[in-house]
Amino acid sequence: MSPKNIMLTPGPTPLPPQVLEAMSRPLVHHRTEDFGRMFAQVLEDMQWVFRTKSPALMMTGSGTAGMESAVQNLLSPGDLSLVLSTGAFGERFSAIHRAFGIEPEVLGYEWGRAADPEDLRRALRARKGWKAVFLQHTDTSTGVLNPVEALAAVVREESDALVVVDSVSGLACERLETDAWGLDAVVTGSQKGLMNAPGLAFVALSARAEKAAESARLPRFNFDWRIMRRSLASRETPWTPAISIVAGQAAALKLLRAEGLEAIWKRHDALAAHARRRLTETLGLPFFAKSPANILTGIVLPEGVDGDKLLADVLREDGISIAGGQLHLKGKIARLAHMAYISRADVDAGIDALAARLAKAKA
Amino acid sequence: MSPKNIMLTPGPTPLPPQVLEAMSRPLVHHRTEDFGRMFAQVLEDMQWVFRTKSPALMMTGSGTAGMESAVQNLLSPGDLSLVLSTGAFGERFSAIHRAFGIEPEVLGYEWGRAADPEDLRRALRARKGWKAVFLQHTDTSTGVLNPVEALAAVVREESDALVVVDSVSGLACERLETDAWGLDAVVTGSQKGLMNAPGLAFVALSARAEKAAESARLPRFNFDWRIMRRSLASRETPWTPAISIVAGQAAALKLLRAEGLEAIWKRHDALAAHARRRLTETLGLPFFAKSPANILTGIVLPEGVDGDKLLADVLREDGISIAGGQLHLKGKIARLAHMAYISRADVDAGIDALAARLAKAKA
Repeated sequence: MSPKNIMLTPGPTPLPPQVLEAMSRPLVHHRTEDFGRMFAQVLEDMQWVFRTKSPALMMTGSGTAGMESAVQNLLSPGDLSLVLSTGAFGERFSAIHRAFGIEPEVLGYEWGRAADPEDLRRALRARKGWKAVFLQHTDTSTGVLNPVEALAAVVREESDALVVVDSVSGLACERLETDAWGLDAVVTGSQKGLMNAPGLAFVALSARAEKAAESARLPRFNFDWRIMRRSLASRETPWTPAISIVAGQAAALKLLRAEGLEAIWKRHDALAAHARRRLTETLGLPFFAKSPANILTGIVLPEGVDGDKLLADVLREDGISIAGGQLHLKGKIARLAHMAYISRADVDAGIDALAARLAKAKA
Repeated sequence: MSPKNIMLTPGPTPLPPQVLEAMSRPLVHHRTEDFGRMFAQVLEDMQWVFRTKSPALMMTGSGTAGMESAVQNLLSPGDLSLVLSTGAFGERFSAIHRAFGIEPEVLGYEWGRAADPEDLRRALRARKGWKAVFLQHTDTSTGVLNPVEALAAVVREESDALVVVDSVSGLACERLETDAWGLDAVVTGSQKGLMNAPGLAFVALSARAEKAAESARLPRFNFDWRIMRRSLASRETPWTPAISIVAGQAAALKLLRAEGLEAIWKRHDALAAHARRRLTETLGLPFFAKSPANILTGIVLPEGVDGDKLLADVLREDGISIAGGQLHLKGKIARLAHMAYISRADVDAGIDALAARLAKAKA
């Protein structure tokens, strides 16, 4: 028999049984009152998660779909846009800009370092007419936490630019305050802190962002926020949504609301602290991120260890999924997640498996 | 207790228990060998469904996402494109063109009529330099079946244009031969003939379509076929896919392969004939489509009957979901599906419920 699987990956994260059960129910047709009720409740709960009074929208797609929708709906050809890049997902925001014909100004950091608000201030002062600033709340590729509140404040002080935040991996794990911090668009995905299967992207948008979407001129159709916004009146999505994943999201949001956001953030604080203490005691390897988020810990593997092989062995023989490094970090780091429905026992099992495997690799 | 639900809608269609069970299993992480095996099998099975030796691609999204991807990946600004429009989904192809800055030539038909290959020939002869012709296999809004084989032959005879077919509602219900009929791109969705939950779009593309996608210049990122194509080498999707729906699709395709495509087409022939016989005997109302597909029958409701209310009553009181008319047909027709996992008993129950409700409306 194969070992029982433990998922320690920073998205998808493991699913609560209530979510699996919801996805296994017969479909509710998406043009019915029953679906409309469920969909409206999901969006209302998402406003609660985003901490916003502004509307939330839902798309079928991955976090990347949500990121693309932000570029498509907020920018026009020739717009001056700044991408703050602290890892693979910052690079993805830039790639999306370029695919749509806009060369963004990039304020890039060595992977593992968080963005510095004063660097952003200097970058914004160097030119005039900024349309938008794109940044990551947490970058899953490095486990770094960016100071979103301070960064958004600098944008407001120095420009009229829209603040666009990718919180695909941070939301419902780390504190994020859409309204209180003045964020204009916050993008997230269903498969991380939201404890659901992958397949849905959500976005919160301020009145400024809604207005900008009305006049932006980049082409879009499937992810056109204006069409989605109009469909909200009849509690519908413009196109057929991933109904079973909406049902899963409704179940997961019920769990999140029962726990409470402050309690969820505290639970993540405690689990991250526990994981790092145990990692230090057991492995004694350096951590990758300088300002680590509570969602995952990146560990720099010893020179000469093939990280991809090590993690493949851990998965095959111990049944534990741990993510490796992306792009230039491939094979060099392990990213152990401690977020969403991942438990303390899961984290301990993962650390023990890593330790045993590393001891074997050294022997 | 609410009545047991019967889904007679042309997408989503009801799900076999094997599909529901597959979606309720814990997630398999999408960067693992286990997922790679499942994904590769799904794409191989999709080639079998499409009847093609060319590659199939998968996207997370609705059928509309697949349609948008065809426009984005095959066209460049200024291209001459023809949309053959026999219903709401032909209009959607045109709307996607316009959203991406291309005004297509539209060969439109009164809803309920199928496209005529000789009309298409005349339209193609009127101008030179056609890049692509977009058409529907079956249009779900009217239940019409277009003569795809003959239409594709005319395109080949009169031009070098790519033949792009939306078979979102037709595939795995009505005969479609991607290779034998010379189709360049065929788009479908998971939630109709494929007997799966909504959330995935698939496309089959010929070598000509692949080549066209390499040089096409409309902007795209999330739905960029070139990025998806390169990821196939490692049996991966570029972005996190809707894993649970991929698992559902694997289970559904296993059922389809066990039955065989020819047998599936025959089953749809027989069920459509049965439905129309019973509808004629029981209701005696005119059918909407002149060349009806086997996927659904559109029935013209008597003058003065509010179709939307009637179908809402049937759903609420009898638990049976039947679709109404779209756009200008709203309230005027009922669309009773007899496709995919819908059974003869389901169809009979739907017809009886409609008959009882109409008798009451007359009384």
